[in-house]
Formats: sequence, C-alpha cells, structure tokens
Amino acid sequence: MMAGGRSLDTIAATSIVTLCLACLHVTSLKSQLFTRLGGLRYTTEPPISYKTLYFDQKIDHFGFLQDGTFKQRYLVADNHWQQPNGPILFYTGNEGDITWFCNNTGFMWEVAEQLGAMLVFAEHRYYGESLPFGQDSYSDVKHLNYLTSEQALADFAVLIQNIKTIVPGAQNSPVIAIGGSYGGMLSSWFRMKYPNIVVGALAASAPIWQFPDMVPCGDFYKIVTQDFAKSGKNCDANIRRSWKAINNVSSSVSGLQWLSEEFSLCSPLKNKNDAVSFKSWLQETWVNLAMVDYPYEANFLQPLPRWPIQVVCKYLGFDATVSDEQLLHGVAQAAKVYYNYTGNAPCLNTSQTATSSLGALGWFFQACTEMVMPMCTDGVQDMFEPEEWSFQAFSDECNSVFGVRPRADWAGTVYGGKKIGSHSNIIFSNGGLDPWSAGGVTSNISQSLVSIMIPDGAHHLDLRYSNKLDPPSVRAARALELKYFQKWIRQAQKSTGTGFTMSKNRKNSP
Amino acid sequence: MMAGGRSLDTIAATSIVTLCLACLHVTSLKSQLFTRLGGLRYTTEPPISYKTLYFDQKIDHFGFLQDGTFKQRYLVADNHWQQPNGPILFYTGNEGDITWFCNNTGFMWEVAEQLGAMLVFAEHRYYGESLPFGQDSYSDVKHLNYLTSEQALADFAVLIQNIKTIVPGAQNSPVIAIGGSYGGMLSSWFRMKYPNIVVGALAASAPIWQFPDMVPCGDFYKIVTQDFAKSGKNCDANIRRSWKAINNVSSSVSGLQWLSEEFSLCSPLKNKNDAVSFKSWLQETWVNLAMVDYPYEANFLQPLPRWPIQVVCKYLGFDATVSDEQLLHGVAQAAKVYYNYTGNAPCLNTSQTATSSLGALGWFFQACTEMVMPMCTDGVQDMFEPEEWSFQAFSDECNSVFGVRPRADWAGTVYGGKKIGSHSNIIFSNGGLDPWSAGGVTSNISQSLVSIMIPDGAHHLDLRYSNKLDPPSVRAARALELKYFQKWIRQAQKSTGTGFTMSKNRKNSP
Repeated sequence: MMAGGRSLDTIAATSIVTLCLACLHVTSLKSQLFTRLGGLRYTTEPPISYKTLYFDQKIDHFGFLQDGTFKQRYLVADNHWQQPNGPILFYTGNEGDITWFCNNTGFMWEVAEQLGAMLVFAEHRYYGESLPFGQDSYSDVKHLNYLTSEQALADFAVLIQNIKTIVPGAQNSPVIAIGGSYGGMLSSWFRMKYPNIVVGALAASAPIWQFPDMVPCGDFYKIVTQDFAKSGKNCDANIRRSWKAINNVSSSVSGLQWLSEEFSLCSPLKNKNDAVSFKSWLQETWVNLAMVDYPYEANFLQPLPRWPIQVVCKYLGFDATVSDEQLLHGVAQAAKVYYNYTGNAPCLNTSQTATSSLGALGWFFQACTEMVMPMCTDGVQDMFEPEEWSFQAFSDECNSVFGVRPRADWAGTVYGGKKIGSHSNIIFSNGGLDPWSAGGVTSNISQSLVSIMIPDGAHHLDLRYSNKLDPPSVRAARALELKYFQKWIRQAQKSTGTGFTMSKNRKNSP
Repeated sequence: MMAGGRSLDTIAATSIVTLCLACLHVTSLKSQLFTRLGGLRYTTEPPISYKTLYFDQKIDHFGFLQDGTFKQRYLVADNHWQQPNGPILFYTGNEGDITWFCNNTGFMWEVAEQLGAMLVFAEHRYYGESLPFGQDSYSDVKHLNYLTSEQALADFAVLIQNIKTIVPGAQNSPVIAIGGSYGGMLSSWFRMKYPNIVVGALAASAPIWQFPDMVPCGDFYKIVTQDFAKSGKNCDANIRRSWKAINNVSSSVSGLQWLSEEFSLCSPLKNKNDAVSFKSWLQETWVNLAMVDYPYEANFLQPLPRWPIQVVCKYLGFDATVSDEQLLHGVAQAAKVYYNYTGNAPCLNTSQTATSSLGALGWFFQACTEMVMPMCTDGVQDMFEPEEWSFQAFSDECNSVFGVRPRADWAGTVYGGKKIGSHSNIIFSNGGLDPWSAGGVTSNISQSLVSIMIPDGAHHLDLRYSNKLDPPSVRAARALELKYFQKWIRQAQKSTGTGFTMSKNRKNSP
C-alpha cells in the first residue's frame, strides 16, 4: 500500500529497494523473506549436501507463441531416499535464491531419513539463478510478463513429471509439497490445482486469505502490536507515540541531524521525505521482529537474541511523561537490537533490509499484479500511524512503476478464497506470534484440510531445524505434520499398489 | 494425425478447411461439432427465449502485459429461476457459436423449470462472436496466442463471479457446469480447477483421456467400425474394401471421372491428391455417422433418418465377389444417405462438412497446441486404411501451418490424466455407439466421480431434447443426472445455509 504522502514521486530518484521500503504494507511479505534469506546456519546443525541441477523449463506454459525455455535450478538430496517408490518432499520455492530456502528448511532435512525421502528444492522463476531472460528478466514489463504464481506452479508440475520420468525408481514416488510463507501459499495451491502431481501439502505460515475482502486489513498489524504489548510494559504504547515524536523532531534541520546521529544512520536524513522513508523503515523493523520472534538466538539479516522483542522492549518501558528525545533515544536503542546486536555495525542503513534488490523487485511486481494484499492501520488497535487501504492508489502506483494494474479479485477467483473445502490433504500451520497468521487458515476446514496452530511460534518456526529451546507446541506440530505425511504416503502407495515400506514409522498414524 | 502421403505440401494450395479434412484424425473432434452445429430444431420442440449479453473479459488471464478486453457473449434464460439462490446451470461453451449449443442442449431447457434454475450459455473465446481481436483474431499466431482451454476456463470463472455480483439474488446460487464433447471436457476440468465456482459438472461425451499414453490410439476407429458392423451384414467389411477399390479406380483419369460422377461431386477429382482428400472426406463421413447415430430422425448438417447407419448399410451388403465399381456404387449410395437424404442436394461438396471455417481453424490450432489426441488405424480391427500415429509428423505439420509445436504431455499434466480421483461431483456420461467414448471415463472412479453409460446412445444423446423414440437408457441417464444435480444443489445450500427450496423434487435424491 502506498498511501497519501508516500507517493512514488517523493522517492522517484531512489532505487527500487528504497521504493519498496516506501510501500511497506505491500511488501511486508518480502521482508520475512529477506529476513530469513540472510540467515547463516548454526554451526551445530548437521552438514547438508545436495546436487544442483537445471531443467529446461518453458517460459510460457499458457501460450504457444513464446516457445523458449530457461534453466530452472533445483536441488536434490537423495542419500536417504528408499527407492523404488520412496516419497519425495518437494519444496515449492518462493521469492528468492533456492539455496537459502534449502539451508533454512531444517525440518525437511530432519525427516528425510525417517521417511526414506528424496528432497527436492525447486527455485521459483525470476529468482535466484532461474531467470527466464537472464539479465534482461527484469528489464521491462514485457520480460516480466511470465512472473506469475500460475507459471511457477506449472514449472513445479512439469519438473516433477520430468523427475519421475528420468529418475529410475521415482515413477510411483508419492510427492509432498512443502513451503513457507509465499512458498506455503504455493504448496497449498499446488495441491489444489495439481492433485495429480502431489499427494498432499504442508503450507507453513501461508497467508492464502490475505487478499481483498477475505480478512480485515488491520489484523496483520494488530498481531505485530500484540507481540510488542506482551513483551514488555508500555512497549507498544511507546512505539505508537514514537511516530509523532519523529514528526516533531524531524520538522527542523537540527532535529533531522539529531535523529540521524541518535540512530547512527549511514545516510543522514535531509528532509521531510527522508523522514517519511525513515518511519517506513522503522515500521518494517518492528514487523520483521514480529516475524522472527524466535525462542532461541538466531542469525538472520542481523544476529538476534532469543525472544528478541523482549530485548527490544527493555528500551521502551517509559511512562507517558517522557520527552520526544528521551522516547526516540529508547527507540534507537531498540532498533539497534535488531540491526546491531553484535555491536559490529558501523552504522544503520535505512535502505537495506533486503539482501537482493532482484528479489524485492520481483515480489513488488507480483504484488502489483496478482498478490494484492490489503493492509491498513488505525493507530488504535495497532501501534502504527493510521493508514487506510486504497486499491486505487495502489493500482495507480503499480501502473506508474511497471505499467501494469493489479487485479484485485483474481487470486480469489483462481485459488478459491474461502471456498476451498472440496480439496484435501493440506496442512496449514501458523504461529500465534506471526502477523501473517492474520491471513492464514487457523482452524480446520475438513478432516483433511487441517490447521495446526503454534501459539508461541513466529513465522514458520516449524520449518526450521529443531532446537533445544523449541517450545513444546512446535515440537508437537512437527510430529503431527510427520504423521500426516506418513498417512498421505500410505494412501498413495495403497492406490498405486507400490510396496515401499516405511520401516521406522509404521505404528505412527494420525 | 497427418501421416505419410497426406502431407501438408500436397494440399498447400487448398483452403484451411480442406487442410483440416486432410488431417482427419486430428480434427475428428471438430466434425462432431459441426455435425451438431448445423442442427435445426424440431418444430415440435418448445420455443425458447433468452437474453444475449456481453461481458468485458480479459484477453489474458495469465499475464499482465496484455491488459485488453474483449466482449464475451453469453446467453441467459431466467424465466424459471427461483431467486434468491436458485441454481444456475452453466453451459461451458465449446468450439463454436454459442447459440447453436443453446438450441441443441434441450436437456438444460427441460430441467430448468424443475430445478428453478437460471440457464447461462457462455461462448468460448475465439468462436462465434467472442473474438478477442475481432476480425484479426485468426490473422496470425500472435493473435491466436490466447486461444487455450485454460483461458476459456478462466473466462467462465470470472464471468460467473461477475454474474453473482451483479444479479440480485444470485450471490449464493449454486452453479453446475454442463457441456458436451470438448464442452464436456471443459465442464469437468472447470469443476476440477475451480471447485470454488461450480458445485458439480456434467461432462457429456467428454474424451478427457484421448491424450497421449492414456488410451490406445486405435479405439476410436474401432468403435466407428463396430457401429457399422452391427448395423448391417458385411457393412464394415465393404467399407474396409472400398479404400483399395478407390485406389484402383482412381489410378486412371477415366476412373477419377467415373468416381466423380458416381458420387455426384461438385468438384470432379483431378489427380491422386484429390483422391487422397476424397478418401479422408469419406472417412470423416463414416465417423460423423457414428457420432450421430440417433434413434430418431434428426436434422444436422444434412437431415438424417432414424438410426442412419442402418440405412447406410442397406447399400453395403455385398459379399466379397463384387467388382470395384459395384462396391463403389454402393458406397456412393451410402454416402448420399448422409449428404442427400432429402434428395435436394444438387451435388456433393467434399470440402464442406463444416458450417464455418473459423471454428475449424480454431480447433485445428487447439489440436496443434494443447489438444493432442492421438488416433490410429490398422485396417484389421477397424475398417480404415492403416495409419500410425506419429507425434513428430503431426508436430512438424503444426509448425509449418501455425509456427507452433504441440505439447504432447501438457494436457495430462495440467488436467490430471488418469489421476483425478481426488476431485468430486462430476458425472461423465458416454454413449456406447459414440467413438469418443474411447477417450471417455466409462466406469466409476469414486462415489462422486461417476460414469453413466448409455449403451445405445451416440454422441451426448443425453444433452438433447427428449424424444418419444429415446431408448430407456438415455431416459434413465437424464433422470440420474437430474438427481445428482439436486444432490449437489442441496449440498451447496446446506453449506451456505441458503433456504432455497426445490419444491418438486425433494424426494428424489440419488
């Protein structure tokens, strides 16, 4: 969402990354990606190895004029695979480099041996190395025209058909789709649209209902706010107050300078537009923290302590009588928990929350076409400046940036919206701390379209490597997910009559 | 299929329609369309009336570069509709003018009152008046690029969403998709891909498995042959012999002249290529007869007697000792049953089995892209000249005509092939006399994916107006179809809590 004063004009001269920061509501989904993308693996995690392969994928599955192909990258780990007909766990790659998803989806690596499963991680077109037109892929809307979720799902389907054809012993392997966030949306849609290809799907933290007229636009930021409210006294209230304090302080040149120094900004704020971008950057910081509020120390874009919001909130306990400067001093300390936990950052870069402008641009295009995700704030039920959702304003911005207009209703039409009850074998897992749960499926739809809630989990905690500090809820979620996998695999093998045996887990059926 | 001697070169100078005749195996699906398209309604049938409406439909649902729209035509009859929330029967238009489907799908008109249903007939893009680029729609492959089944299904989905939005009382109306032949394929695929939009589908005579590696390529022509074999002594054997007789006779100029006179051809045969086209035209004639072998007099491309193959076979009862000329005299008499039952045709036109070259060209493009339907003959189990299926040869022809290459596996990947068991609420009805039943679903897949066989039915007899000469099997089929409709409607209304009452049929549940 790009509302009111945050129009494109004000940031026209800056890079696309900055532009995306200025349209925070639209690109929040992106944030989580890059938050996770930056992750370095724990040294205590087991080493993983995989083959990197490339498949000649059609650029356009839905037309025949453009008959070119591109190299789609995918990663394969088959050391635990029990052939013939052992299952395949297939990660439906989202908006980024597939190696990062591969490294950050420990759950798949941990269950592979138990299931005798092959792991496949498929890169989403237009991200990582899977560029339909190489370096020209993002050059204009003509080249971007094949960046859609439908094309990505077709890529996955065709790739799996190919794997089953060329890999001996894989012909009757049941395939389970797994993904997190947008990747989770894709995994659930993949099962809905191609039940002939995948026997089931785990959609972790997948906001498949974060579309127009499906959920209230304010719920996302309400959850962010709740996370801060329960992590320290006055924490949400002081963030709510901070926006006016920034407005007050940034109204003078000396105030802008003071703010820049207080936050150790790499590029000092120079004018009102900079202050607007600065507020967006801060807002995105709080959102990121809500998404990665994990129960153990973790290493993302920046290293973070365990339960990072609690640490942040230690700097935001003031009562109402505090001055603007005192309040903003606390906010700066809080922000530095996120950006400088190690103390090694020389300065804070307000144009850098993303590791790659490519991924950001790609997601921005997707948001400007199919992935219309309304978000709004009212400053009362949430701690942010009030900002309504305006489809028209958003559409106008998209048109000026890309020359395309989003289709508000298309995602609901093509992926079913709330009317998905006739599908089967999909797990929707959500974390209670995760703002994206606002657009997720958080109660059972049927016996085989099930919700798994992880009350003290942030963004797809269940997909991460297990950790000794994991709360019981996520351990239970992973165990239940595994049982559903086993059930789907048995169902599939029963129907094809293949005799693969899951030796270790025969007794554990849901 | 365009095999061996029937290459494009031999017919390069002729029109596209003739070209399609020369690739008979490929375009047989087309034949049935035009067979039915030409139909005039019985004067005893009740008069029907409908509104003709137009909807601004996106030219490209799967990309955002092409943001233009076109006028999609649809017909609405709501005089029996019980609003609010009465059901909608939605005909998923196939490759032709929607008014013809509207006039020839009497079953929908006959059940509308009983169900309190609104009828909607939606025209398929690129056919009839629904031309995305007006008169330029067929000008080149660039303009043809949006002619796919996926785009057509998306049209239907978006149109229904629109109807539900703008028509008072329709918001919670359960929608049932109905179609025959390619339209039946679309109706079943529509339910598979958009179960949020339609609660169920009747797919009449829908060859959803007539794709590579799903059914034997020879079954289609075997059924044609069986229809002739059981309609008269020696009937299939004499047609089998006729090809060699034609070859013999057409080897001389005088023989060609004799043949032309015997068959009363409007354009006399001049050379070997003409003789090849002539054989294709005859083969298509026998196929058409198999599809429309109805139990009552009917009016199609040409008027036909009841059980027309029996009438045809009266001229083909010779034993093996007959001369080529005697045999071909009989064949000519037989062909004239199809082309000149009334005796009013001045001559027989071998380039005219279609009422519209537009429809033929459109279907040929679809066959050359997604709708790859292998067919073959061996001359032993069928009565035709042996002709293998060659994907490569077919692909080369498509490339030379349109500059596109078909994708052999795509239909199976995107529509599930034999792995459709997880879907629900689809009736596949098939006629035992209909060669298209070879590629149809002819046994139950699950409790809600059911097959209805009509042993003495030809091509989607069940969709036609009822007739006093209808066999009991088609009466039973229609009654069962109606019961399923009622069941689906009740299911849907239960789930939405809408209180529409089907007053007349409460007791009849399947």
